[in-house]
Amino acid sequence: MSSEAALPGSGSSAFLEFTAAWRPSIEASLEGLLPAESEGPVSLHRAMRYAIFPGGKRLRPVLALIAARVTGGSPESALVPAAGLELLHSYSLIHDDLPCMDDDELRRGRATCHKEFGEALALLAGDALLTLAFLAVAEAGGPAVRVLAEAAGSRGMVGGQVADLEAEGLGKKAPGENVELARLESIHDRKTGALIAASLEIGALAGGGSDDQEALREYGHLLGRAFQIADDCLDQTGSAAELGKRPGQDLAMDKLTYPVLMGLEASRKEAERLAVAAADLAPRICSGGEGSGLDLEQRLLQDVASYAISRTT
Amino acid sequence: MSSEAALPGSGSSAFLEFTAAWRPSIEASLEGLLPAESEGPVSLHRAMRYAIFPGGKRLRPVLALIAARVTGGSPESALVPAAGLELLHSYSLIHDDLPCMDDDELRRGRATCHKEFGEALALLAGDALLTLAFLAVAEAGGPAVRVLAEAAGSRGMVGGQVADLEAEGLGKKAPGENVELARLESIHDRKTGALIAASLEIGALAGGGSDDQEALREYGHLLGRAFQIADDCLDQTGSAAELGKRPGQDLAMDKLTYPVLMGLEASRKEAERLAVAAADLAPRICSGGEGSGLDLEQRLLQDVASYAISRTT
Repeated sequence: MSSEAALPGSGSSAFLEFTAAWRPSIEASLEGLLPAESEGPVSLHRAMRYAIFPGGKRLRPVLALIAARVTGGSPESALVPAAGLELLHSYSLIHDDLPCMDDDELRRGRATCHKEFGEALALLAGDALLTLAFLAVAEAGGPAVRVLAEAAGSRGMVGGQVADLEAEGLGKKAPGENVELARLESIHDRKTGALIAASLEIGALAGGGSDDQEALREYGHLLGRAFQIADDCLDQTGSAAELGKRPGQDLAMDKLTYPVLMGLEASRKEAERLAVAAADLAPRICSGGEGSGLDLEQRLLQDVASYAISRTT
Repeated sequence: MSSEAALPGSGSSAFLEFTAAWRPSIEASLEGLLPAESEGPVSLHRAMRYAIFPGGKRLRPVLALIAARVTGGSPESALVPAAGLELLHSYSLIHDDLPCMDDDELRRGRATCHKEFGEALALLAGDALLTLAFLAVAEAGGPAVRVLAEAAGSRGMVGGQVADLEAEGLGKKAPGENVELARLESIHDRKTGALIAASLEIGALAGGGSDDQEALREYGHLLGRAFQIADDCLDQTGSAAELGKRPGQDLAMDKLTYPVLMGLEASRKEAERLAVAAADLAPRICSGGEGSGLDLEQRLLQDVASYAISRTT
């Protein structure tokens, strides 16, 4: 795969191994945070759990655990905040899928929350997951709650969603316009990038603080962009079975996307450029002195970047 | 007014004076937290501000400031968390008014948020306010974020809203059933009472911690119930001009309410009983030793209770 050849290391295997190793603990942490289905209101707790289990890649929790490890802390210390990041991500998907938003019927290969439970319960399940996310992330201590609130609020994710809605129809314009590209990047940075960067920052806080918080933030910024461009490409090239949701939605709604503006091939190249730039930051982020034993952590950060773009081909 | 005669003091004047004195600071705190309308996404920030200003009684912020003072702290120390409580309350109103929920068109004397801005923006403005609320409440320190998340989540306010929706149609049943009364109280406690109690608890945390946190919690519990019964009565007896929203909605939707179960007069008596019980706790909450100079604080707590039920007549 050409995109991976440009990255240090041999692909995303360290990341995938780490994910597989920590997945049971992430699931247990989510399980521990969510009220049981048998606890009332049963319908609400069923809807919340439906949105969380079996779940997707758990990317944000895994990023938090990696960041905790990079700081010299243990991934265990970040498990509860990591689960909080997944709760927050899941709330955003529920609300995004609602009829007044993207009006989607399929998510992770099955009916969206409102299709299964009705609009009122889906709305409230999202609200409750967002609320619970803050309880979980507060466990990271320090400014973790502030970091999450800024990443997820009107200047972050929610603001990006509004900008995304307002950009519907703009995908019809001639590709390559620089104004539109800047606008798209601003949407991506807020809608997806902010929470990915926050996942790393909150994980680092739980782990005891990074040596170079600024480098970690920049890494998150680049990684978030690479992931979003890959998602844009996937929406054009993937099947419903691969994606677990209806493909071609961006095109159908004339959304502003990277492939629409630059074409698929140039989009893939840009994602690769971003992933390489992110991977290049790994040594700085893990610079815990000579012989700090952070080789695996560097490798993990590089492999996440590789993984981000491996999905575009 | 018979209900006030049973309470110590002469009515709700200390509370109203305190509210008037602190209102400008509360407004300034809200103003400082909310992004300017000129900041993008303009539509989102306009919708958020529309839901907050000019606003209602600011009851929850005032309760937080009173609680901060009761602990011997300054109300100033609680201003940011207090504003956060108002943001959270306002988000709940926006989402409650949505078509898939109560489908209301009028709130605080004008169009509801979704009538003015459309459903998608109203949904997202609510999400952003909920998110911002946690940023603000985190300033209180200690377990404030946990207190808010528990009061506002699926075991608190959101759970109460679900239980309330599920109780629609139950208002048709024969009044006086004990099972229904217990169910109604459980709905009230979660839907309204939890956030009122949390407002006091978070204010106390911002002020430095109460002498008797348990008594303060019990006071909040009783006060929340008194307020909710008063609201139920007002929905039956008030005009749209008085309420700023469409009256008679509970009856129209066959909701389970106090007046439906017990009749108006018995409901007023129950609210009075609760207010008296709350007021009786004031000396315990303010027991900062002899000559602690907390006379005004006791008076404030008693007057809030009096105010809660003054609206029922």
